[in-house]
Amino acid sequence: MYYYKLTVAYDGSHYCGFQVQANGITIQEKLMEAAKPVFYDDVTMTGASRTDAGVHARGQVVLMKSLRDMPPIKVLGALNAHLPSDIVVVDVEKVSESFHPRYGAKAKTYRYQIVTRQAIYPWEKPYVYHYRQSLDIERMKEAAGLMVGTHDFESYSSSNKSVTDTIRTVTHVDLSTEEGVLTMEVSGNGFLYNMVRIMVGTLIEVGSGRMTLEQVAASLRDRNRQLAGPTAPASGLILYSIEYEL
Amino acid sequence: MYYYKLTVAYDGSHYCGFQVQANGITIQEKLMEAAKPVFYDDVTMTGASRTDAGVHARGQVVLMKSLRDMPPIKVLGALNAHLPSDIVVVDVEKVSESFHPRYGAKAKTYRYQIVTRQAIYPWEKPYVYHYRQSLDIERMKEAAGLMVGTHDFESYSSSNKSVTDTIRTVTHVDLSTEEGVLTMEVSGNGFLYNMVRIMVGTLIEVGSGRMTLEQVAASLRDRNRQLAGPTAPASGLILYSIEYEL
Repeated sequence: MYYYKLTVAYDGSHYCGFQVQANGITIQEKLMEAAKPVFYDDVTMTGASRTDAGVHARGQVVLMKSLRDMPPIKVLGALNAHLPSDIVVVDVEKVSESFHPRYGAKAKTYRYQIVTRQAIYPWEKPYVYHYRQSLDIERMKEAAGLMVGTHDFESYSSSNKSVTDTIRTVTHVDLSTEEGVLTMEVSGNGFLYNMVRIMVGTLIEVGSGRMTLEQVAASLRDRNRQLAGPTAPASGLILYSIEYEL
Repeated sequence: MYYYKLTVAYDGSHYCGFQVQANGITIQEKLMEAAKPVFYDDVTMTGASRTDAGVHARGQVVLMKSLRDMPPIKVLGALNAHLPSDIVVVDVEKVSESFHPRYGAKAKTYRYQIVTRQAIYPWEKPYVYHYRQSLDIERMKEAAGLMVGTHDFESYSSSNKSVTDTIRTVTHVDLSTEEGVLTMEVSGNGFLYNMVRIMVGTLIEVGSGRMTLEQVAASLRDRNRQLAGPTAPASGLILYSIEYEL
């Protein structure tokens, strides 16, 4: 068996998320279809992250297993030749059997972009949340600081009873603004379902004055989804990169 | 009569350029259509720059004349409500009768983006030239330095016999690279037909070793289209901004 680590970028606008499901077209399905002319049915794919419907990726990692041996550069060319234009394999490398895209991930980084300008450029539209109102960035940075560290993030998870361990470590939440685009970068050892989007939704509440720093602190202390802000829209989120132990 | 200065951004991929013509859909036509529900037939539009088919804009300037008086913010909202998603009016201000979008322009800035990586991100595709081969940026910077200043740019113009004065002043040609994207920014007091794309095409020839600095110097001295490089593809070009005297 041969193991290929694919780094995949996509515009998730027109997909029902990464993972194959019955109700709609997914990124994984398109990757499998693209592999078929080259690897026939002899291939399995496992994604590092189940990005949701509408969420984008710059550095999704997918483990592809196949009985067929092929140089990485050929795999890259063959897959891209059969993928739609909104999904691209940006890198391929061979890995050992011990590589696991999900359990082996040491850190994941997401970015979320908000446009607060009245008008939005055409190229920004698919990749941002067009919020249109001004935000108090300094207050948001203070709230972001509260989120950094090891916390029980149950307030920051959409109901998913199968997950019992809701403790995660967030290593940084950085906010920066450039030309009317507010970018929030969040890194951590792992994230609960919708966690980044709820963190962003909470920061927007703080930036607009609807939530206080005390309320953010309470949401991180008491385990109650009602205490955190709403889930920010999918369009602004991108799975930026995933780090592995060397 | 009322005069409105519109700043317009667009993804030019699916248009036959800015200016109305018989053979295809243009940006100007879409702007006129969008104005119709608000201004009826009582409106004329004049663009600062006739961007070509496939060329994009971040800061195209359009003078709109109408007998109807309306607050700028309302004009912006009304036009954007009727424009397709790849054209956006990003700013509207009232100007005096003496404002002329073309003759009043003091400086224009264009940007051209080249991806030299093997793989291209989905969001880059419409806005770059995917060149795929490495370029010697330092040599290109030297060649760019030769282009700065006042020159007879006839070698850098696609045949257009109606233009007799081919002397232009280029104030800067800056090259920078970030994450595998080479951006060339060109500013000047005016540009001949296809001039920026031929400048870029020439710099690519230099960067790939197919043209020497001496040949670039000759192309700026002798007036002969054959001496300059080819016209780079439209997709990489964006009309970035236009400056006016205050």
